[in-house]
Amino acid sequence: MRELVELKKAYRLLNHGPTVLVSSAHAGQQNVMAAAWNMPLDFEPAKVCVVIDKTTYTRALVEASGEFALNVPDRSMAAAAFAVGDCSGKDINKFKQWSLATFPARKISAPLLEGCIAWLECKVLPERHIQDRYDLFIGEVLAAWAESTVFSEGHWHFPPGHPRSIHHIAGGTFFETGDEFKAG
Amino acid sequence: MRELVELKKAYRLLNHGPTVLVSSAHAGQQNVMAAAWNMPLDFEPAKVCVVIDKTTYTRALVEASGEFALNVPDRSMAAAAFAVGDCSGKDINKFKQWSLATFPARKISAPLLEGCIAWLECKVLPERHIQDRYDLFIGEVLAAWAESTVFSEGHWHFPPGHPRSIHHIAGGTFFETGDEFKAG
Repeated sequence: MRELVELKKAYRLLNHGPTVLVSSAHAGQQNVMAAAWNMPLDFEPAKVCVVIDKTTYTRALVEASGEFALNVPDRSMAAAAFAVGDCSGKDINKFKQWSLATFPARKISAPLLEGCIAWLECKVLPERHIQDRYDLFIGEVLAAWAESTVFSEGHWHFPPGHPRSIHHIAGGTFFETGDEFKAG
Repeated sequence: MRELVELKKAYRLLNHGPTVLVSSAHAGQQNVMAAAWNMPLDFEPAKVCVVIDKTTYTRALVEASGEFALNVPDRSMAAAAFAVGDCSGKDINKFKQWSLATFPARKISAPLLEGCIAWLECKVLPERHIQDRYDLFIGEVLAAWAESTVFSEGHWHFPPGHPRSIHHIAGGTFFETGDEFKAG
């Protein structure tokens, strides 16, 4: 079941470095792309960073709308995650092409992806210089959600047989999030 | 054995979102802190992002020297990784406190940590506004290294019994990098 995540703990959804899907919408158009280059930036107000290349259709939608969502996929979505990172929403409707179902966000117009295990609804904090120079976007997290079977009370827990987040390296090669352990 | 990593493939050392140790040095002083909030920023020239809080001693050393190194630890260093993230180099010599051995970097003055599995030597690309406002640092990678038993020919491979990178969540709870798989 999807449950709201307390905003000051939203960083924990990304703290372990999962690859995400960035969804966006503007003026009736929607798109989705993959982004391994993301990270938390602050606890409260919760902020995140993500790299969105100038050549992408997502970039146009994010700059026009001032919003994006980060969706945390599991292994069952890895093929779609890799595929949507390898083509442009200028040319095709990626949601139709890969049968990606969505549901409405609470605070933004970008759709959220069914089948993911966490979601962060973000508003762009405009920083034109780093957007232009480095394709680097800063977002404030307005709402965060997680699948309660794998994230609850502020913690991920991935029991055997449950979905886990994934970490892309290159060329469609991923690692699953592995075993949990306590330091010391 | 430590081997040089081609700079245009240096992003792959961080692409899967490992927690790193940030080492720094200036005027005879050295320090090390943990940073889960890091990511690749560009392929070539290779660039990275890392968040370095204003309150840290590392921040002073990085701003004074214009350099830092990102060291990728494995599970055997998790206790040290958590501990060095939980105290300040203003108060103690963390290298002595946790018996952290170092070796010299090739391009920068910050020391590199023995026992890690990859290393990125970085020069700060000064972006004062985002450093001041978000504690966000951009570095160009001047040299990159990896332990060839787990990273070779541009790819991580973590066979059983070999060290793996780690991913911090909160409070000393980590995940190891898990199983590799191909999408599709």
